[in-house]
Amino acid sequence: MRFLHAMIRVKDSDKAMDFYTKLLDMNLVKTITLEDSILYFLSDEDGQTQIELTANFENPENGYEHGNAFGHFAFGVDSMEEFGKKLHSMGYEYLYEPYYMPEAGLLIAFIKDPDGNEIEIIED
Amino acid sequence: MRFLHAMIRVKDSDKAMDFYTKLLDMNLVKTITLEDSILYFLSDEDGQTQIELTANFENPENGYEHGNAFGHFAFGVDSMEEFGKKLHSMGYEYLYEPYYMPEAGLLIAFIKDPDGNEIEIIED
Repeated sequence: MRFLHAMIRVKDSDKAMDFYTKLLDMNLVKTITLEDSILYFLSDEDGQTQIELTANFENPENGYEHGNAFGHFAFGVDSMEEFGKKLHSMGYEYLYEPYYMPEAGLLIAFIKDPDGNEIEIIED
Repeated sequence: MRFLHAMIRVKDSDKAMDFYTKLLDMNLVKTITLEDSILYFLSDEDGQTQIELTANFENPENGYEHGNAFGHFAFGVDSMEEFGKKLHSMGYEYLYEPYYMPEAGLLIAFIKDPDGNEIEIIED
C-alpha cells in the first residue's frame, strides 16, 4: 500500500495556495473540479503528492473547525535562519519561535497556515 | 523544503499501530520517547516517513476531537477486492463501501482508524 496524501479543507484557496506553494515551496501536481469543490494536489520537491487541499464553493462562515486529533504537518528546511527571513518577508509570523528539541536533536519551530493548521518546521 | 510527516494523536497506541502497520502495511521507522508521550514515525513501502502517531501518556477520556479542517489520509491499493478481504478478516468495516468516482476515474472507499480519523482507500 502506498501513502497518497493527507487532505485538509481550506476556506480561501488563494491564500492557502500562496502559503503552500510560495512559502513552503510545494508544487501543484493536478486539480480536480467537482460539483461542489476544487481539489488541489500538492507535492514537495520529490514530486510525489503529499497534501490535498479541498476548496469547497460553500464554506462555514468562520472557517473550518480544528479538533485536537490532527496535530500538524511537518516540513524540513536546510536553514531555519533562511526560512525565518522568507517567513517574515512574506508577512507571516512564527507561532513558536525556533527552539532546540534535545530528544530529537533538532531545531524546530511552528507556524500556522491561513486556515489555522499548525505546521512544524524542522532544520534537518 | 521537504514534506516530512502529518501528525495525529492516538488514544491507544497498540490499536493504532495494529491498524497502520498491519492493515495499511506501514513500517515503524523510529520512535522518540518524551516526558509525556511516545512518538511513532511510520512510512509506507517507499521508506520515507509520512505519518507520526503521538501517543500521550494522559489522554482525554473520550479520545481526541475531530474538527472538519482535517479530512483524511489517502492510501493506494492495487486491488480493492483484496483489500476488502483483508479489512474484513481483521475485523474492520468500511465506512463507505467502494464506489466509482467518475471525475477522478478511480474506485474509492473510506474506512476509519481506531481513533475515528477517516482513511480513503484508492485503487490506483
